[in-house]
Amino acid sequence: MESGWRRWRLLRPGWGMYHDVKRRMPYYWSDITDAFTYRTIASTIRMYFVNLLPAIAYTLDMYRRTGEFYGVNESLFSSALAAIVFSLLSAQPLTIVGVTGLISLFNFTIYDILQHYDGSIYPAFMAWTGIWAAIFHWLVAIFNACDYMRYVTDFSSESFGLYVGIIYLIKGVEELVNEFQGGLAAGYLACLIAILYFGTVYALENTGSSTMWKESLRGVLADYAYVFSTIFWVGFSHIPGHLREANIGRVPVTKAFYPTQDRSWLIAFWNLETKWVFVAMPFGFLLMLLFYYDHNVSSITAQARQFPLKKPGGFHWDFFLLGCTTFVSAILGLPMPNGLVPQAPVHTDSLTVYKTDLKIVSTSEGEDTEIRRPIVSAVAVVEQRVSHLLMGLALIGTMTGPSLVVLHTMPSGLFAGVFFVVGWGSIESNGILQKLIYLQREQRFIQRDDPLLLVRRRKIILYIGVQIFGVAACVAVSHTLAAIGFPVLILLLTPLRIMLVPKWFTLKELQILDDFTATSKTVLASLGGKPALPEESRQEEWGLERRRSESRHGVSRQRAGSLHL
Amino acid sequence: MESGWRRWRLLRPGWGMYHDVKRRMPYYWSDITDAFTYRTIASTIRMYFVNLLPAIAYTLDMYRRTGEFYGVNESLFSSALAAIVFSLLSAQPLTIVGVTGLISLFNFTIYDILQHYDGSIYPAFMAWTGIWAAIFHWLVAIFNACDYMRYVTDFSSESFGLYVGIIYLIKGVEELVNEFQGGLAAGYLACLIAILYFGTVYALENTGSSTMWKESLRGVLADYAYVFSTIFWVGFSHIPGHLREANIGRVPVTKAFYPTQDRSWLIAFWNLETKWVFVAMPFGFLLMLLFYYDHNVSSITAQARQFPLKKPGGFHWDFFLLGCTTFVSAILGLPMPNGLVPQAPVHTDSLTVYKTDLKIVSTSEGEDTEIRRPIVSAVAVVEQRVSHLLMGLALIGTMTGPSLVVLHTMPSGLFAGVFFVVGWGSIESNGILQKLIYLQREQRFIQRDDPLLLVRRRKIILYIGVQIFGVAACVAVSHTLAAIGFPVLILLLTPLRIMLVPKWFTLKELQILDDFTATSKTVLASLGGKPALPEESRQEEWGLERRRSESRHGVSRQRAGSLHL
Repeated sequence: MESGWRRWRLLRPGWGMYHDVKRRMPYYWSDITDAFTYRTIASTIRMYFVNLLPAIAYTLDMYRRTGEFYGVNESLFSSALAAIVFSLLSAQPLTIVGVTGLISLFNFTIYDILQHYDGSIYPAFMAWTGIWAAIFHWLVAIFNACDYMRYVTDFSSESFGLYVGIIYLIKGVEELVNEFQGGLAAGYLACLIAILYFGTVYALENTGSSTMWKESLRGVLADYAYVFSTIFWVGFSHIPGHLREANIGRVPVTKAFYPTQDRSWLIAFWNLETKWVFVAMPFGFLLMLLFYYDHNVSSITAQARQFPLKKPGGFHWDFFLLGCTTFVSAILGLPMPNGLVPQAPVHTDSLTVYKTDLKIVSTSEGEDTEIRRPIVSAVAVVEQRVSHLLMGLALIGTMTGPSLVVLHTMPSGLFAGVFFVVGWGSIESNGILQKLIYLQREQRFIQRDDPLLLVRRRKIILYIGVQIFGVAACVAVSHTLAAIGFPVLILLLTPLRIMLVPKWFTLKELQILDDFTATSKTVLASLGGKPALPEESRQEEWGLERRRSESRHGVSRQRAGSLHL
Repeated sequence: MESGWRRWRLLRPGWGMYHDVKRRMPYYWSDITDAFTYRTIASTIRMYFVNLLPAIAYTLDMYRRTGEFYGVNESLFSSALAAIVFSLLSAQPLTIVGVTGLISLFNFTIYDILQHYDGSIYPAFMAWTGIWAAIFHWLVAIFNACDYMRYVTDFSSESFGLYVGIIYLIKGVEELVNEFQGGLAAGYLACLIAILYFGTVYALENTGSSTMWKESLRGVLADYAYVFSTIFWVGFSHIPGHLREANIGRVPVTKAFYPTQDRSWLIAFWNLETKWVFVAMPFGFLLMLLFYYDHNVSSITAQARQFPLKKPGGFHWDFFLLGCTTFVSAILGLPMPNGLVPQAPVHTDSLTVYKTDLKIVSTSEGEDTEIRRPIVSAVAVVEQRVSHLLMGLALIGTMTGPSLVVLHTMPSGLFAGVFFVVGWGSIESNGILQKLIYLQREQRFIQRDDPLLLVRRRKIILYIGVQIFGVAACVAVSHTLAAIGFPVLILLLTPLRIMLVPKWFTLKELQILDDFTATSKTVLASLGGKPALPEESRQEEWGLERRRSESRHGVSRQRAGSLHL
């Protein structure tokens, strides 16, 4: 720990970025040589689908709601740009960067706002919003402000996860409602495909974490659940007869490598009136706030403690890079990419070598002398840049004419299914839901070593009540023109947790209910060390609930969309 | 045990019926007085739905495929008749009797056959088939031939359960295919409702057997899963807008209390040519064979060992009664009712008082000192006639005009969902599927006290292989004109099991893989005592797999459609 003014990293501009690069640089060569394993191939295929499908899903929504300004070509370009830049230059190439549902929400809310004034300035206004956002990104990176991420606890990241999950489910339903524009038959068939697609991915991923068949076969199911389901249901939608006749809506595509609208790639942002340039500034600031939280949380979860990572990451440097991709996207009229909260940990998962061991619990009873349980452990992670890079190249390949034709064969109803998978994944494993289920369960069947038993029920209700209130506020705001303000709400949860919440709960209770989101050593090195909290405590005393579950069942595989924050 | 010629009960006509009545008669008054509990009300409501919905589902199919001869009015009349007769007069009023999917299959197969000759004689031919069947029923009852049911083991009853499950799933799909006649939109909406209805019933029933909430609330979920789901999805299909516009197919109803076709209730069976009267005889014999197996198995499962029954049943007397209802149905042109395999045990279940206890398994490990498990036990069964009678009266009420109007509001796609629930329930818990899953599981995670571990894998494969071969043969035959012969195939499984199978397996292996279907003492009393088998063994040595599961988890609640044979 430094002393005197050096303790204030804000006063040492560039210090964080410099150390990020210095820490990671020595591993660069090994990031390529370490990649020669089967895991890299499996990871590339899985991440291509897990990145591409949701991106198209968000784009369908954004396309309709921004006057068809952002289309499939823009989203693919943006995803490919981000993948190439971050795979080659980032300090933490595990963090997948791409088009999120929140940027879609952000973009069409601004579109709605501008309709009240002058709709035609939308492209240039978005460019300036992005330019301002890029500048704020660079400032944040230079002044080491990512340090504050170490104060983020599961209190706010679980709320964020639940918020994202609910928004995605709503988006899925909206997508299906929209499908009825093609007629009743098309609409109902889209609903059917969405539900069956969701069921297929869900069943395949659950089978992948069962004890059926061999470990290797289960691994294949978990790796390729999206791939199998997508190929099957796209094919299904093309079966001649009633299915063909329903004339279901499909992904709208335009000419390869050209913008969706009739424009050149470069936006003429210099033509915007000066007053609008300055109006764009607060919007840029809000965008930066969104990315500050969203990108850094996704980076933290990609480096969560359950993954035995050896190489360091770098938050400041990566946030600087994110400023650069934001800038380029802004002037080219692309949706700005950022860290994908549900998908980033899936990337690390896809590179992790898991081992399922047998745990025998011997019991003291006669007939029932032992209980056999699988316990999953993460042996190693293939930390490298190649899978990320290959995925980026595959995205560029997808931008070509023949690939767009393939994309056009996909029923858009399937993407409602993607929304359901990603959204429900984010809700199902969420700590808020888990605590809610705990409260509903019949008391006597709760295992006695459950740490939650040490907290009074009304304290648990209060805790998740505050979280749910925050989520409800965000969801409500998202359906108004004030939607662009939701990053402020999300960010406010952290100071609320640090300042107010400790007044209502004892330290012991918080150690059971909450945990720091950034816990691994390599992560904290970049964030300037452990958080200095008013409560005196060692990090090892936090997250009792998670520790107990891991000692009993081992780590859980990261399902697409499920956030194990 | 009797000796000499008295051992051959076949030679003592009426002996079985006489003793059935003699055993049960003393309980008749208590069958009314015991009924004054809440269980009777819950049971009446649940059984009304569990009996009515599948009956209508089978009728939709039968209606279309018998030239609209058998309609909703006929099925309701038949169900009500059976319910009134069996609730008042049977020796075992727990056995629910009604319209099954197999009688539907039987009826339309005969219809298809007669189309090759003279379609107009169908009503009279069916009447004669039923009259012959009734005569064979009475002969079987008088000569105590139900005794042979005690030789039925899970080998054949599991096969039968799987066969019924598969046929129901196929029927569900056929029903949905038929919905497309109302247009694409109606078809897809029907698919959607069927799938969501299935999901709702399934989820409610599963929650009912979880450890969420209080035991009483879980009981309500389990009791009324069908009721809630049906009301919800019928209402859903009437929401104005896209749902209304789809113009989905609904249950076809005709004038109350009149036959569906323009005829008098009594069939003019005396007008049939003599040659056809005799042609109907073998068909009547096949029908009797079907009912012999189907009705007696449903009666046995309604009195399965897991239910702590105190009052005796009577197979011979009930089979005689079944002959009477067959006769009446035949001359009135109703589908002949018989014991409902999946629903009969649901009736007993709905009358059973369950108790969920806490079982604490103490373990020898430090951190994980005990494991808490729910263990369900059946405390008592409210054995009475009133729930069955009230259900019958409710069915008569359903035959009135206003109720038919309510029935007509139900989308027929919902009944495809009913087929899925009943069919999948019969497959999911089936021993064949359970053994198949056992074979697929990774060896090391199988609990060491699983008795199946004592049988070599290829022996298990051989065992379920023979079962699956039998099921496949029945399913294949069901899609041809030879479908009416399937009762012969099902019945052949029992001698196959008793004669041939013991040559391929050791007694020990069979004791693990198989079990006698009729095991409780009250049941065997009517069937003439324990089976005399070539293998020497005590009954207590059979059914090791089930015994182990019960000692670990307790009995499982009977879900609608699931056969715990």
